[in-house]
Amino acid sequence: MTKTDPGRFFEDYRLGQVIRHAVPRTVAEGERALYHALYPARHALYSSDEFASHCGLEGSPLDDLLAFHIVFGKTVPDISLNAVANLGYAQGRWLAPVWPGDTLRSESQVIGLKQNSNGKSGVVWVRTQGLNQMGEPVLDYVRWVMVRKRDAGAPAPEAVVPDLPPVVDAGDLAIPEGLDFSDYDFGLAGEPHRWGDYAVGEKIDHVDGVTIEEAEHMLATRLWQNTAKVHFDATHREDGRRLIYGGHVISMARALSFNGLANAQMIVALNAGAHANPCFAGDTVRAWSEVLDKADTGAPGVGAIRLRLVATKGDSAACALKDSEGRYHPDVLLDLDYWALMPV
Amino acid sequence: MTKTDPGRFFEDYRLGQVIRHAVPRTVAEGERALYHALYPARHALYSSDEFASHCGLEGSPLDDLLAFHIVFGKTVPDISLNAVANLGYAQGRWLAPVWPGDTLRSESQVIGLKQNSNGKSGVVWVRTQGLNQMGEPVLDYVRWVMVRKRDAGAPAPEAVVPDLPPVVDAGDLAIPEGLDFSDYDFGLAGEPHRWGDYAVGEKIDHVDGVTIEEAEHMLATRLWQNTAKVHFDATHREDGRRLIYGGHVISMARALSFNGLANAQMIVALNAGAHANPCFAGDTVRAWSEVLDKADTGAPGVGAIRLRLVATKGDSAACALKDSEGRYHPDVLLDLDYWALMPV
Amino acid sequence: MTKTDPGRFFEDYRLGQVIRHAVPRTVAEGERALYHALYPARHALYSSDEFASHCGLEGSPLDDLLAFHIVFGKTVPDISLNAVANLGYAQGRWLAPVWPGDTLRSESQVIGLKQNSNGKSGVVWVRTQGLNQMGEPVLDYVRWVMVRKRDAGAPAPEAVVPDLPPVVDAGDLAIPEGLDFSDYDFGLAGEPHRWGDYAVGEKIDHVDGVTIEEAEHMLATRLWQNTAKVHFDATHREDGRRLIYGGHVISMARALSFNGLANAQMIVALNAGAHANPCFAGDTVRAWSEVLDKADTGAPGVGAIRLRLVATKGDSAACALKDSEGRYHPDVLLDLDYWALMPV
Repeated sequence: MTKTDPGRFFEDYRLGQVIRHAVPRTVAEGERALYHALYPARHALYSSDEFASHCGLEGSPLDDLLAFHIVFGKTVPDISLNAVANLGYAQGRWLAPVWPGDTLRSESQVIGLKQNSNGKSGVVWVRTQGLNQMGEPVLDYVRWVMVRKRDAGAPAPEAVVPDLPPVVDAGDLAIPEGLDFSDYDFGLAGEPHRWGDYAVGEKIDHVDGVTIEEAEHMLATRLWQNTAKVHFDATHREDGRRLIYGGHVISMARALSFNGLANAQMIVALNAGAHANPCFAGDTVRAWSEVLDKADTGAPGVGAIRLRLVATKGDSAACALKDSEGRYHPDVLLDLDYWALMPV
Repeated sequence: MTKTDPGRFFEDYRLGQVIRHAVPRTVAEGERALYHALYPARHALYSSDEFASHCGLEGSPLDDLLAFHIVFGKTVPDISLNAVANLGYAQGRWLAPVWPGDTLRSESQVIGLKQNSNGKSGVVWVRTQGLNQMGEPVLDYVRWVMVRKRDAGAPAPEAVVPDLPPVVDAGDLAIPEGLDFSDYDFGLAGEPHRWGDYAVGEKIDHVDGVTIEEAEHMLATRLWQNTAKVHFDATHREDGRRLIYGGHVISMARALSFNGLANAQMIVALNAGAHANPCFAGDTVRAWSEVLDKADTGAPGVGAIRLRLVATKGDSAACALKDSEGRYHPDVLLDLDYWALMPV
Repeated sequence: MTKTDPGRFFEDYRLGQVIRHAVPRTVAEGERALYHALYPARHALYSSDEFASHCGLEGSPLDDLLAFHIVFGKTVPDISLNAVANLGYAQGRWLAPVWPGDTLRSESQVIGLKQNSNGKSGVVWVRTQGLNQMGEPVLDYVRWVMVRKRDAGAPAPEAVVPDLPPVVDAGDLAIPEGLDFSDYDFGLAGEPHRWGDYAVGEKIDHVDGVTIEEAEHMLATRLWQNTAKVHFDATHREDGRRLIYGGHVISMARALSFNGLANAQMIVALNAGAHANPCFAGDTVRAWSEVLDKADTGAPGVGAIRLRLVATKGDSAACALKDSEGRYHPDVLLDLDYWALMPV
């Protein structure tokens, strides 16, 4: 009865430790189609090989968030199986497109540890890298989670809290090789709004809503080989509800953001992210965005836009985020801060 | 707050106007597999590369209705986002098979306009064409929808109602290049009934039923990148129900028709179609067919059969369609008139 | 109204009869992705082309159970459409991997017949073979089902009950050409336990549970082109419940068994199987395994392990199977006996 994996507890992590996550995964046309079935994804660069070629790429890459979910999913058995909470993300960068046929694996390094004052849990910071079959990094991000201790009496490690800049510097964004938006087809992309049309501070209500079903979030979460029990086992929580993988909400909100941000084609950095409230089947997810910053890139016709993407189970038109005391509005599901690439 | 697309209203259409729909889509093995997961599709030509090669094709094309849904889905943001009702189809022809790896886009021309007498809405007729990456048309059809006016005071356009023959002439059917049913394998196809075995007026109860789930129709409708709110947002209608995309019912009924029409392999024309009553999750869909006509084609061993395909949420054995006053029976979901190709 | 297939009844079978099942099927990347979405499948050999190449294969084959479901699904219209019960499996062997792009078809030979004493039904034994596009067998198994008679007065055939050894002899296991586990990467595979670490009699609770949804089992069962009404039509049973295809439970349990048996990579034989109790949507499926036997194979680094895989809708930690009178515990859904290949 001891061959199953109980997951790691707080005292199992060591600063500097490198964890090579199991189960590499080849991703192809099937994952692409499922992504389009699971989310109302319409960004043209990820929908059409022709459109992507016209933008200087060799074909249509797999969705950036699909790559994220696969890389993230591999880390779950080692990082978050005993996690009490997923506390945050920082310094995430997409480093190379993922093409159909690529095989991805993940590696994480422990870069911070801090036991909680209650002595029963602690916070673990890891830097995770997704690698393709050539060993090239395709994605790199930091996340931190609160993990239970197996034994409350285990000694606390020396507290090391990594210094994490709140935003990826625009100069550090990795622009995919060959990307060129100088002959971008706004008609086929679906909206006329270009980078120059967006103003910092501008908010966009993405209008549409999708009511979430149990079958769908489980199909998605399994597809990413994410093994966290709470997403699949209705007997796990006392209330009989399955907690929806936060990444499902990220992808849903990003796809909904097409309406108003159809030209924010590629996600190149994840600055920060909070799963503000849990999402359950039956919730109707809506989204709104706020333009946080804009920057030039060296690539022809390509601008960078920094966006706050908020998913809500309430009214997206209100663009509500936090109350006067800084607490998230109870309807807010997600508060994500990312950089995307747009035609200038 | 003005960057999202409100969709077009009746007064936004002009006779002769050509609308190039956004978001081209590359379709491949993933879409094929999902089609088989979503519908009980068993027609051998779309299931097996070997079978299709044996019929003179280069491999198994993607299902004809998959091509239809993709082409149709692209038109939704421009044609039916503010539609009150989807009124009809006419003169639909499949012009070339869609192969895995093809990229489809859609274009529509406004061919008719007629304001309703209430002044609040009007009927728009469009001819839509689906095109592949070589710019070759793969599908061509007319549909008309009732669209709301933004401003009831906007002037009515000159009424132009296109003259639409009720049936595609058998001589106009496009037979896929190379198609040859002279060495057709009835055993592998699943039924012995050939074109000569069907009589005009014959009705076939397809017997089987499928109970519809929310997750499934949403997966399908998203896969076709159809953005109509009513299919996804349970808060949109007062009754909290999501209206199922009519095309989901078409595909379900067509797949169920395998039982009795296993050799009606390829759909080559859509003569007419009515979504007689709305379909909701929980409905059990059944189907029956009626042979409306038969015709020769020039292709070796290939006959054309014109079929009425009726989907019902009631008893398919009764083959009920309309009452004495010409109104659809309340259980009837779909009344579709199409041409298919069969071994003679 | 006579063109639909009523299925075969007991008196339609003849000893020695060969039934060539309809609707060949090309399986590819899309089916692979759906398998990962439908089941929490994580065995590395079926997840990563790189990992499979490293084990001497040309790439990652499609899951062995996916091949089983496709081959089995084709037999349903001819064998089990009028079946009262699926009684058992024996002498199943996987003979060659199925690769993306392969086209599968099935053939069955009637090898046993025995009318029941009530005169209303009988038992039919068939040996089914799955064949690829080169006509090579990929899978071979015996199953027997109880089938209704159309006419209770039809004469009983001479009773012939095949002699079926309860286990596939280890010497008869077909080891895929080139398979070599001598340089197996236990880290990437996900667990350190090798063949030598498992003891006959050892039981493993696989811990995790998945609550089943209607949409998911229907998507799966349709994907295998299994046409049995009970899985799809909520009006078919008096209680309004859809009976879940037994193979869905097999795949779910096998995928859950990753946790503790991550290195039991390839299924090569099916010795026996019983669907002990029906499974319905809402059930939470868990699994446990028991090591029944171990054997050498001639292949480098490859051992064979014989496992009992039990799916339960109750507590898997108890490893309950049968009561003192030999009846299955009411929570037990599946009792499967198979051979798998593991690194020694």
